[in-house]
Amino acid sequence: MTTPAVSSRDLPHPVREEIRLESVLHALSDPLRLQIVRELAAASGELSCSHFDLPVTKSTSTHHFRVLRESGVLRQDYRGTAKMNGLRRDDLDDLFPGLLDTLLDAAARQAARLRSN
Amino acid sequence: MTTPAVSSRDLPHPVREEIRLESVLHALSDPLRLQIVRELAAASGELSCSHFDLPVTKSTSTHHFRVLRESGVLRQDYRGTAKMNGLRRDDLDDLFPGLLDTLLDAAARQAARLRSN
Repeated sequence: MTTPAVSSRDLPHPVREEIRLESVLHALSDPLRLQIVRELAAASGELSCSHFDLPVTKSTSTHHFRVLRESGVLRQDYRGTAKMNGLRRDDLDDLFPGLLDTLLDAAARQAARLRSN
Repeated sequence: MTTPAVSSRDLPHPVREEIRLESVLHALSDPLRLQIVRELAAASGELSCSHFDLPVTKSTSTHHFRVLRESGVLRQDYRGTAKMNGLRRDDLDDLFPGLLDTLLDAAARQAARLRSN
């Protein structure tokens, strides 16, 4: 008997009740992670890790996605060789009504403000 | 000529335009700092550092208040020997409309949820 290979590809996620506000805020306190979340929100669907053009090494990029996954901000699943990412909007909206949209609005306002300076 | 003693007691604060969303979220990603902000919001006025009964050493407490001040979340001023703290609600509401109240609501919901478990 061997363990099915697929199990080693199952990535750990917190269930809804385990998601903590402090961890969500920490996950979003990094400019690149905030950018990832903004792109996912704008796409309103799943995006592969390779879709994101981040100015960091592969291992740093993997770290940022892991922080977002472990905090409960996004869900990661393998589709073949691609790691797909989707915002956990339902879970976040249920736990913290309005928070995700307010954060996205704040990030958009700041980006516009910094561009215009 | 000597420099007036008061100047060494002036604490550095970012001006409104220097406040960054990422720094605000980082400041609020710690449970004790989030608790400080919740108490300040509930007090709707200034509170001295010694008002807060935090389960940490004096130097750790000072660190937490400094992170909150340097991120622009609160303003600290000396009144005699007391260091007084006040939320920078006007600045935060202007830069990120609705964010502070949404975060306070999220923190209150989580606290109620964890108490009921």
